[in-house]
Formats: sequence, C-alpha cells, structure tokens
Amino acid sequence: MKRHILAVAVTMGLMTTSVLASEDVAALEQRINELEQRVAQTEQVSTEANEKASSFEFHGYARSGLLINDDLNGATGTGPYMTTAGAIGAPIGRLGVEDDHYVEANLIHKRFADDGSSALFRIMLADSTETNNEWTASESQLNVRQVYSELNRLSMFSESEAFSEATFWAGKRFDRDNFDIHFFDSDIVFLSGTGAGVYDVQMSDNWKANFSIYGRDFGEIDSSSTDVENYIATMNNRIGQWQVMLSGMTSADNDSRLNGAAESGVHAMFAYHGDNFFGLSEGFSKTGMLVGSGLGAELKGIGSNGDLLDDAKAVRLFSYGVTRIGDNWRLAPALMAEHSQDRLKKNDEFTWASLNVRLAQEFTENFEMVYEGSLQYMDLDNSTEQASGGFYKATVAPTLKLSTSTGFFDRPELRFAVSYVDWSEDLNGYSISTEADAATMGEGGEVLFALQMETWF
Amino acid sequence: MKRHILAVAVTMGLMTTSVLASEDVAALEQRINELEQRVAQTEQVSTEANEKASSFEFHGYARSGLLINDDLNGATGTGPYMTTAGAIGAPIGRLGVEDDHYVEANLIHKRFADDGSSALFRIMLADSTETNNEWTASESQLNVRQVYSELNRLSMFSESEAFSEATFWAGKRFDRDNFDIHFFDSDIVFLSGTGAGVYDVQMSDNWKANFSIYGRDFGEIDSSSTDVENYIATMNNRIGQWQVMLSGMTSADNDSRLNGAAESGVHAMFAYHGDNFFGLSEGFSKTGMLVGSGLGAELKGIGSNGDLLDDAKAVRLFSYGVTRIGDNWRLAPALMAEHSQDRLKKNDEFTWASLNVRLAQEFTENFEMVYEGSLQYMDLDNSTEQASGGFYKATVAPTLKLSTSTGFFDRPELRFAVSYVDWSEDLNGYSISTEADAATMGEGGEVLFALQMETWF
Amino acid sequence: MKRHILAVAVTMGLMTTSVLASEDVAALEQRINELEQRVAQTEQVSTEANEKASSFEFHGYARSGLLINDDLNGATGTGPYMTTAGAIGAPIGRLGVEDDHYVEANLIHKRFADDGSSALFRIMLADSTETNNEWTASESQLNVRQVYSELNRLSMFSESEAFSEATFWAGKRFDRDNFDIHFFDSDIVFLSGTGAGVYDVQMSDNWKANFSIYGRDFGEIDSSSTDVENYIATMNNRIGQWQVMLSGMTSADNDSRLNGAAESGVHAMFAYHGDNFFGLSEGFSKTGMLVGSGLGAELKGIGSNGDLLDDAKAVRLFSYGVTRIGDNWRLAPALMAEHSQDRLKKNDEFTWASLNVRLAQEFTENFEMVYEGSLQYMDLDNSTEQASGGFYKATVAPTLKLSTSTGFFDRPELRFAVSYVDWSEDLNGYSISTEADAATMGEGGEVLFALQMETWF
Repeated sequence: MKRHILAVAVTMGLMTTSVLASEDVAALEQRINELEQRVAQTEQVSTEANEKASSFEFHGYARSGLLINDDLNGATGTGPYMTTAGAIGAPIGRLGVEDDHYVEANLIHKRFADDGSSALFRIMLADSTETNNEWTASESQLNVRQVYSELNRLSMFSESEAFSEATFWAGKRFDRDNFDIHFFDSDIVFLSGTGAGVYDVQMSDNWKANFSIYGRDFGEIDSSSTDVENYIATMNNRIGQWQVMLSGMTSADNDSRLNGAAESGVHAMFAYHGDNFFGLSEGFSKTGMLVGSGLGAELKGIGSNGDLLDDAKAVRLFSYGVTRIGDNWRLAPALMAEHSQDRLKKNDEFTWASLNVRLAQEFTENFEMVYEGSLQYMDLDNSTEQASGGFYKATVAPTLKLSTSTGFFDRPELRFAVSYVDWSEDLNGYSISTEADAATMGEGGEVLFALQMETWF
Repeated sequence: MKRHILAVAVTMGLMTTSVLASEDVAALEQRINELEQRVAQTEQVSTEANEKASSFEFHGYARSGLLINDDLNGATGTGPYMTTAGAIGAPIGRLGVEDDHYVEANLIHKRFADDGSSALFRIMLADSTETNNEWTASESQLNVRQVYSELNRLSMFSESEAFSEATFWAGKRFDRDNFDIHFFDSDIVFLSGTGAGVYDVQMSDNWKANFSIYGRDFGEIDSSSTDVENYIATMNNRIGQWQVMLSGMTSADNDSRLNGAAESGVHAMFAYHGDNFFGLSEGFSKTGMLVGSGLGAELKGIGSNGDLLDDAKAVRLFSYGVTRIGDNWRLAPALMAEHSQDRLKKNDEFTWASLNVRLAQEFTENFEMVYEGSLQYMDLDNSTEQASGGFYKATVAPTLKLSTSTGFFDRPELRFAVSYVDWSEDLNGYSISTEADAATMGEGGEVLFALQMETWF
Repeated sequence: MKRHILAVAVTMGLMTTSVLASEDVAALEQRINELEQRVAQTEQVSTEANEKASSFEFHGYARSGLLINDDLNGATGTGPYMTTAGAIGAPIGRLGVEDDHYVEANLIHKRFADDGSSALFRIMLADSTETNNEWTASESQLNVRQVYSELNRLSMFSESEAFSEATFWAGKRFDRDNFDIHFFDSDIVFLSGTGAGVYDVQMSDNWKANFSIYGRDFGEIDSSSTDVENYIATMNNRIGQWQVMLSGMTSADNDSRLNGAAESGVHAMFAYHGDNFFGLSEGFSKTGMLVGSGLGAELKGIGSNGDLLDDAKAVRLFSYGVTRIGDNWRLAPALMAEHSQDRLKKNDEFTWASLNVRLAQEFTENFEMVYEGSLQYMDLDNSTEQASGGFYKATVAPTLKLSTSTGFFDRPELRFAVSYVDWSEDLNGYSISTEADAATMGEGGEVLFALQMETWF
C-alpha cells in the first residue's frame, strides 16, 4: 500500500501541475490563434509588397567636375579624345582630363506576368554640358538616348530549347551586349540605333546568339526628301568565353547624299572574355580584334559613320585586364590600336596605338591614390598632309570612395587629380580633317587640375 | 486491487507524460513570447512600409521604331495625320505608319494625410524625335507638358454631399477626362492648358460635374507687348452613361493679333459611353458629336487654335467600339467625320470622314496577327482651290506581347508591320494652306515596313 | 480505501484531462513550429525590403499658373524681380505676381554600406517656361541644374572627432546650407557651381564648419580660347545659433574678358538663426548681414557675376520671421535692403529696401485667406541717370491646402489671387543698364489675377 499511497500522492501532486498546465494550454492556444492571424496578415502585406505586378528602377551614370589649367582658367579642348587621332576614335586614359558634366538617368518600368514572363521598359535621359554654372539651359543637350521595350521568357516558348530564355526587344537602344574599356572611356563595340531583335537564343549547349536589326540616320537629301538610313543586321555569338559578332549593313542612296560614300559594309569582332588576368593572376581580361570595310570601317560605332568611303578598311586590336597586386595595389593595363585606310579620302591612311596603365594604391577602406600613365602613338596621313608622333599623360589622383577593397569599379568616387599632358611638336598644327578651318591640337606641355565626382548605379 | 494497481500504473505512466508536457508548456510559452515579439516587430515594419505618408509613381507612354519605304530609305511624311486633311485634324489608322520616337514620362508624388485627404503632384516630360540615332540633342523636343497639383477629399467638405468626393486642382495639365480613339491616335476631346478646377462635384445621385478654367497662349502682339491668351470655361457633366461637355471661351485682342480672328467661341460635346459593343456583344463602345463655332470650332483641341475666324463653324461625329469575335479574334471599328466652314478663310469648306477597322487574330498567348484597314474621304475647299478624293491604307502586323487574351490595350507590343498606302491623284498637289510654299501630299502608292515597340503603363 | 479510490478516481479524471492536454500540446507545438517558420520568412522579406543596399527618392518644387491682367490678357514682365531694382537682385513679395511654370525634379539614389557609411547621388532637372500651352518644346529650358555625389560617415574617420560625422562631396550643386526668404523668392545666400568640399567638420563642441571650393564660368575670350572661370573658396561656420560664412574668390584674366572687371573678391555673411520669433513669440526668425567687394559684391549669388568692377562694394541686411497670432492667424514679416556702389559702372550707386508682410487667416483645416503687402524703396544712380521712388503691391489670395494648421510651408497650395501693383512715376522709363535699348519698368497701376499651384516635397 505504501507504494500505492506514494503513487497516489505523486498523482495528487501531478494533479495540480496538470490542471495548471491545462489552463496554460488553453491560454497558449488562444495566443497562438491570435499569432496565426497576425502572421497571416503580415505575410499578406509582405507578399503584396514583393509579388507586385510591376516595379520601378532608377539607374544612372554621371561625372561632373572642375578642370583647371595652369593659368588658373578653365581647361578647354581636353578629354579622352583630345588628341589629333581622337577625331577617328583614338582614346587616351580618361583620368584627370574630363571637363564635361555628363549624366545618364535611366527610368525603368518592369511588368511581371503570372506565367513567369515579364516586360521591361527603359528610357534613358542624357545630357552633356561644359559650363560649371548651375543653370545650363542655353547649352543643355538633354535628350532621350534610349527608349525601348523587352519581352522576356514568353510562355509560348517555354517548351522551346532555343527560345525559352530568349528576350525580344524593339525600340531605340544601346545594344545590351556592348562592352567597354572604362579607362579609355571607349566602348569596344557600341552598337546602337533603332530596331528590333532577340537575345539569348540557345543555339547549342555552349552557344548563345543574338540577332538584331538596327537603323541609323545619315541625313537627308533635301532635293528629293530622301531620308538616308543605314540598316545593320547583326549576329552576336557567345561560345563559351569566345565572342564572335558579325554585322552587315546597307544604306541605299548614301552615295547620292555624299559623293563616294559607301552604301554597304561588313564588320566583325572576335573577342575572348577571360575570367582571370591573362592567365597570370585573379581578375579578368578581354582581348580581341575588330575588322571592317566600307560602312563597317567605323569599328567602334558599328554603322554610325556615313562619310566612310566605299574602299574604307580598318582593323583594330584591343586588350585590357584588371588584377590585384599584393594586398593594397590594383593594376589595370589597357591597349587599343587601329590601322585604317581610304577612310574619308582616297589614299588616307591612319595608324594609332593607345596604351594606358591605371594603378590604385589602397590606404584605407575609403582612400586610395590612383595613378595613370597614358601613351598614344599616331601616324596620320589625311591624303594631303602627314604627321606622326606621340602623346603622353601622367596623372595622380587622391580618391575617396565607400570601398576601396571592392576594386576599380566601386562608385561613387570623389577625386582630386593633377595631370601633365604633352605631345610631339609635329602634331601641333595637324588635323585629320582636310577642311581649312579644322580644329588642330594646339601646343602641349600643360598641367591640369581636376576636382571630380564619378558614379554609376 | 488489480484495477487499482492498473489505474495507478496508468497514472504512473501518465505522470511521466504530464511532467514532460509541463516542461513542454513552459518551453512553448517561451517560444510564443518570442514569436509575439517578432511578429509585433514585423508588423510594425510592414505597417510603416504601407502606411507611408507619401509615395512615388512612374507612369509612361512610348513608341519607338524604324519606318522604311520601298526604296529602303527612311519613310518621311507619314503618320496618322499624313493626309492633306490631316492638317485640320483628320486621322487615319495609325498601325504601321508611325515614324517618330514619342515618349511621355510621368513622375508622380502623392501625399496622404491622416484624415483621409490626399494630394497628388505630377510632372510629365515628353519628347518627340524622328532620328533613329541615339544621341538626339540637336533635335530634342524634351519638354514639361504637365505640371500640376490636386487636392482630394478635403476634410472641410467631408459632410458636403456635393464636394465630399471632389478633387481640386491647379497648374498645367491635360484634362483628366479627355478620352481618345487609340486606333486613330486622336483624342475625342483634348482639353489642356494652364488653369484650375474641380472634378467630381456630385450634382445629384446620378450626375457628376467638373468645372474648370483653362488658359492657352496664342502669341504676342510685339508692338504693344500684349500676350494674347484664350480663357476657356468648361462644365463637363457625366449623367449615367451620357456625357455633356459645354465650353465657352474668350480671347481679348486676338483680332488685333491676326486680322479677322475670332475673339470668342463656344464648344459642346455629347457622348454616350456604352458598356457593350453597340448592344451587339461584349466589349465597349463610345459614340457622340462635337459642335463648335468661333474659337470653339477646333473641335478636338478645345480653344487651342487662335487662327480660327469669327464665323468658323464645325461639327464632328465619332463612334468606335471594341469587341471579341469567337475565341481568337478581336474587332475594333472606328469612325470620325467632320464638316467645317469659314474656318481659316472666308468661304473655305472642309468635309472629311475617316473609317478604320482593326482586327486581331490570336495565335498564342504571346503572338497575334493584327490587321488594319483605313479609309479617308476628303472634300476640301480652301476658298481658293478645291480637291476631293480618298485615301486608303492596309496593314498586316505580326505582334508579340505578354498577353493577347487581355485584348487590344495590353502593352508593351513589339510589332513588325507591312502597309500599303495610296490615295486619289487629285489630292497630290493640294494643301489646306493657301500659302505658296505649303507642303502637299505628294504621290501615293507606297509600301512601308515598320519595326516598332509601343507601351504604356 | 475510499480515499484511495477517490484519489484514484480523481487521478482517473485527471488522466483524461492530461491525455487531452498532451495531445493539445503536441498540436500546439506543431502550430508554433509552423508559426516560427512563417515569421522567419516574413521577417526576412520585411528585412530585405528595409535593409536594402540602395534606395530611390523623388523630391521636387513646382509652381504653375495663369496670370491675367486687367485687360484680360496674359500679364507680362511680372514676378518678384519685376521692379527696376530687380535687375540688381531687389525682390518684392511673390504672392500673386508669378507668371512662370517653374519645376525642379530631383532624382536621388542612395547607397548604404554595412559599416554605416553611405553615398548619395542627386540629379536635379529644372525648367522654366511662360507659355500656358502644354507642348513647350520651342521655349523649353529643361536642364540639369545639379549633378553631384556625397560620401557620408566614412569608416576611415569613425575615430576622428572632427570628421566622424562629415560629408564629402564633389560635382555641380546648390550648396547644402543655402537658405532663403521664401516670401521674396530670394535666397539669402545662393552659393552654387561645380566643385568639391566637406560639410559638418566638428571644430569644437559647439562649432561646425563646411569647407568648399566652387568654380563658375564667366564666358570665353574667343581670341585666346580662354575659358574665364571664377574659383570661390568658402568656409561656412555654424557656432550655436550664429552663422559666419567667409568666401574669397579669384578669376584670372576676367579683366581681359571685360575691361575693368574685377579679378578677385571677398564676401562675408553673418547670420543669427533664432528658434523663436524675435524673442516675442513662438516661431522662428533669421537676421543678418552680407558684405562683399570686387567679385564678392554680388551678395546673394556668391561669385556669380563676372561684370562687377574691381571697386564694387555692397552691403545687405536681412531679417524675417514666422509666428502665429492667436488661434487662426499667422504672420511672416520680411525685410531685405542693400547699398552698393561702383558696381557695374564707376560711380554708380544703388540703394534699395524691400519690406514684405504675409498674413494668413485660417478658416478651416483646408482653407485660408492669405494677404500680402509689399513695399520697395529704390534710390538708383547708374552713373548716367538717377531715379528714386517706391513700389507697392497688395494681394489677397484664397487658398486651399491639406493642412492650414501646419503653417506657411505646408504644400501643395492651390490659390486664386488678386493683386494691385503700382509704383512712382519717376521710375517709369528708368533702367539699371545704361544700354540704349534696355528694358524699363513701364507704367504702374495694374490689377493682376492669378490661378496658381505651388508645391514642394
């Protein structure tokens, strides 16, 4: 019986506990009920905020700053295309020589459908001015550079291997797959204009291709109200790390607009997109070649130059890369070189090569010293006159940013820069253009001081 | 005793369970406590995100594309107002003939007060260019078309039957209740300018009215520094499905600006907004009439034309609708016709009628063929010369979009279009304007190819 | 045994309860598990929405309206700088005399780093037009007035007493610490241009300072391709409620651009920012003095006027405040006065004083009557001719807004206004400029009617 009594005693003690627990449980149940309701409401609010049918995005690029010469006046005629060969697209390193206020503001609207397809609309406003004053209406260049729509992952192609991931587009745009050498402020290809196309057609496991048609304007023949346009058809292939881009173009009546001008052209780019720094270290590198003839001989801005001769031929090489050296240094060398002939005048012949090295020395998470050395060799024959020689620039730029460790492309940057620019005397009075009053390069040997911000997002 | 022992044994087993449960309950209680705190925090975050005092919205319209003629040049002089009668507002079907890059970007700020009242601010940037190139600064038309504020549901009127739902506004705007025939790219009324007004005054159970004053500029009389403006007072009534809009206007000294020009005018619109397709099928339809005299004889853009004569008279009829035919076809016929006289010159007399039919044949959720046939009859007498004849256009447009089942107004659309346009030879050299160098219609019989995107959101 | 049996019976009853509780507890446990998962998900969604690495903001200012004269034409030549002395910066009360459509649209992108530092990018689009029509391309002034970046609370300075709260910036901007007398539409200082600087350097416990360099353009000397700029160095101190702002500036070769023009200047502002209405009542008040010489003699727009003579001297006083009188009235008096000499011509001498009083009488939360009286005294000697006299304006403006109780600065406001403006006859044909065809003030005695909206956010 003792065990019994004990047992019951235990049971009695338990009784109290259990009764309490029972009351607790009811209260807990009530609290859980309430919680479930509140969580359901909160989930709905969060879901509505997230699963919205449309969204807005703001993206942009901007640079703005003061550029002062060693007479303490505003510097004029500077920039990455300041050399004589700049007129045919030869850049120098941009750091410390940019005098403009350039803005791109992208307003983007996206629409999402329940079936996983989506649409994107973009307008890009852009402006470029040189005045440092704040009311710029008299020299405003504000304009709409892009206005296009895209349709992505259309449900009608969901079963298609080739088109299930494709993007269709039409309107005025910069081609999505343009890419640049930032340090030169030069695109490697800058395909743009108005047209339509399709991106990311899966040709095979390792091969994606874009197909597009772009139109560009060369001007009007007033006498016949003919609006001369150039129509460019492009196939842009990405096979592993290789890119092969082929373009053909035709512009009816361009010869009537300008005697001797080409009415067709071809253009090709071969590029290798390396995911390391030339096989030597971490980083990336891009190397390749562009060739073109006729209207295709404007190698960067494909089909954008209507004044090219029918015999125009050009070839361009490029290579650049970005890497880290040790803990606190970063390196970015870049090379671009071009040879062209029969470009604007029969028997003209232009050769140039630009070499740029940008180095960054990180002192803290927010401060780095940036150094840039730039060389350009030019051998120019505009069919009437010849000149050859070199340009060089050296720049030092103490720079503030949020994160030096993120590398060369972290923005915004606020920078002070001092540059010295000089060039061969032979180039002083020379111009690519054969017109009498064409601008020439002036005299070199100048120190430039810059206060500048640059950002993108 | 067996039962007792059994009972106790059961009790013993229970004891273990109950003790565990008791521990569980305490743990559960703790977990619920934590959950309640987390839910409260999350609720606050969600609530703050939702009950914000202000919001931003981005809305827009855009079209952009290539238009190529059968000589493989850019098409010129095309568009929905390309005919001779287009100069006095006669449209043709727009599909496949638009050559411009037109953008409207609306930036909207809303402010919400605790008492349920709210404010809205809108600016609309708009641009229209024809070049297919991407840097359009030299022909940029970028401008601020709207800038206005609205006050909604003011608490001082919360007890007022007439004004409790009213919206007060001032600034530069398109009137809220303008409406259009999309297929013609023509508003039925396009009241706009700078002014102030009130919308949605509840006159009786079934009757709402808007009252507004708009000012528009006609130009300056330089000799006296007089800025001639036209002030338009409008009452716009919505009685069930009927709309009656009455406008009167006055422009002091307009006759001094341009001899013979009207200094006042009246304008009326009667419209029926049907919630089905002319009583025949599902869809909608809108039918009505506009009349005006003096400055009111510009029937679409009320009060916008300062060159109208004092005796000018005009009457316009319109009707259009949208319906579905069977499972995969949609139909949208539209008619607009106008007769006017003593418009710009004493004894001028213009009659025109435009008929348009747009058909869409849905193949998949993302692809449809769109067909448009358009006719316009013109009988034109500019007081000096007469001409009459017809214009016709036929267009086929394979079209991609997110949802063909959503109907004619789902956007964006990416389309390729081929059109054939032609007109009576009588119209070739004719112009509404009597000036010697006025533009004329040229010759017809042209094939046009278009690649275009169009969107709104 | 009875007790035992009882006890066991109780135990038996308990057994049931406890078993139920045990089942409940397991169910509750399951429900809590589910809740915890759902809350975790919801928290993540909310957190992601809140702790985003970047954000967009839209801010703006706008006014738009009709201004009609008593001949029922558009009013011309009006505005806060409509008087003869307006040409040298003398404002009158703005209420009811503004005829322009002025917009500022700020698009702001912020980036947040994990270490608490952040970056801000702003572009401001601005436009000013006078036409009341909605398509304003032909007179559009749309331009980019600001484009700059800021870096805030950089981690490298987190241990620095002076710089831990500092903001570094570069680009084109309005200085952050500009401030204005709204009722005059006049900044007290409006430092702007392109440059770089640092805000909020903590000099001591009660002393913060900004340091900045701004460049502005004065124009080009075409013969030498010299871009004449003015470089302004500013130290702006905030010591308690006192502000001391010191600026020096230099513009090499400005005298070569315009004979006699200054090539340097100094400028100082002393201001007291009161947190009550001149010690008399609640509200705020600001009082101070500006002095300048040479290029610094343009007292509001520091360094913005390149035509100032080397001997130019100017002193300006300002004071204004805002308070509430009783339950339903608000008062805002403002005074600004300037004396300058040798400003644009040797021996010119200009004195003016502007007094403005704005009163608001609140009738409901949404409606108030606003009254403004404005006086301006001018004593002007442009070195060739003299004139002196007064200008006055009286305005009554019934006004709608969301919250009259919020005070003078609650926006948007929709207002109707009637103003009477008149001035001394002596001023009728007088101009600050000595050029033959300079605009003069015309005749006074005019009634102006306005319909206007104004907003900022």
